[in-house]
Amino acid sequence: MRIGILGSGLMGGKLGTLFARAGHEVVFSYARSDEKLRRLACGAPGARCGTPAEAAREADALLLAVHWSRLEEVLQQAGKLTRAVLISCSLPMNADDTALVVGHSSSGAEELARMVHPLRVVSAFGTVPSEVLFSVFDARAKPARPSLVYCGDDAAAKELCAGLIRDVGFDPVDAGPLRNARYTEPFSLLVAHLAYEGTGSPELAYRFEDRAG
Amino acid sequence: MRIGILGSGLMGGKLGTLFARAGHEVVFSYARSDEKLRRLACGAPGARCGTPAEAAREADALLLAVHWSRLEEVLQQAGKLTRAVLISCSLPMNADDTALVVGHSSSGAEELARMVHPLRVVSAFGTVPSEVLFSVFDARAKPARPSLVYCGDDAAAKELCAGLIRDVGFDPVDAGPLRNARYTEPFSLLVAHLAYEGTGSPELAYRFEDRAG
Repeated sequence: MRIGILGSGLMGGKLGTLFARAGHEVVFSYARSDEKLRRLACGAPGARCGTPAEAAREADALLLAVHWSRLEEVLQQAGKLTRAVLISCSLPMNADDTALVVGHSSSGAEELARMVHPLRVVSAFGTVPSEVLFSVFDARAKPARPSLVYCGDDAAAKELCAGLIRDVGFDPVDAGPLRNARYTEPFSLLVAHLAYEGTGSPELAYRFEDRAG
Repeated sequence: MRIGILGSGLMGGKLGTLFARAGHEVVFSYARSDEKLRRLACGAPGARCGTPAEAAREADALLLAVHWSRLEEVLQQAGKLTRAVLISCSLPMNADDTALVVGHSSSGAEELARMVHPLRVVSAFGTVPSEVLFSVFDARAKPARPSLVYCGDDAAAKELCAGLIRDVGFDPVDAGPLRNARYTEPFSLLVAHLAYEGTGSPELAYRFEDRAG
């Protein structure tokens, strides 16, 4: 699969690296510096770097991983998107990253879907800290993988996303339609609180368990 | 400890039963019928039933477990509350239980705290389905207990609540101040979606895992 990374920061950089390690063709774009983009491209097999438009070209999936304030800019630079599934881990955070700017009656994922309509949007990967990604990937052969929730309105797009979630070592958990990002986005902030302000380490994951069996 | 149950429905009935089994003195109140209250009282050692005012009298902790639409009525019937820690698992649901009536810029727990000020409020137990409680309790001697998040603004009240969470078989996870109910309440709806509309059973629990090792 060909995957374009729109936003190669902590989250996009690590996920792109893991997608490449899992065998996908990855194009990193939109980082703080070209140097960072080149470093990411060199650090993963089958990866390269380019502009957002180059990342978007012929992509099967696009990972959107920019700060909410950069959303319009990166989408503009990506140009016309038609085919790709847009997987977003961008939370609708305010400028100082202290609160969601949208919630309850809408969500960042729904706002995004309106902006890029008719592109198919899946919300995923925002519910775990970037710090945990490599250790989960490295432990992917072990049983009891951590969960990762995703939500969206298009079944095929969700299936594609679930495959990527599996590729990086998590157990995909279907959280329903895109409007359920109204639940998963606040959940992301709960996880962030536990990871960064709790007593444990930022390498935090979660697992849903069926206790009936 | 003496625990009054305000709202002896699915959640309050089961939690009160487990508190009693764990050795606490429990008073059930406010159910659909007196018959239900009597049955609960008979089904647990050290439990009895009464009015909300009787449940509240000399209680160390009060579990609030009513539908949001019943909040004012049950609090009015409980009378003046001064000493007890009020532990709420009541989610601010609309009449047909399809959506939260408050969120993003406030939460049910914060609204409740304003209503009962200066009583100390801890939000807990709302993030798991009632269906999972007995199996978690029965497995409490096993390792890897499921997590249960709680939040509040008073350290001593939170510690009391954490003890009760431990008593019924969960691993208490401090989710910070009461305002973080803005995250835990939508998380409850995420869990409810997975439990009741997902592919698994309603006996769903969750566990946060520090993957740093």
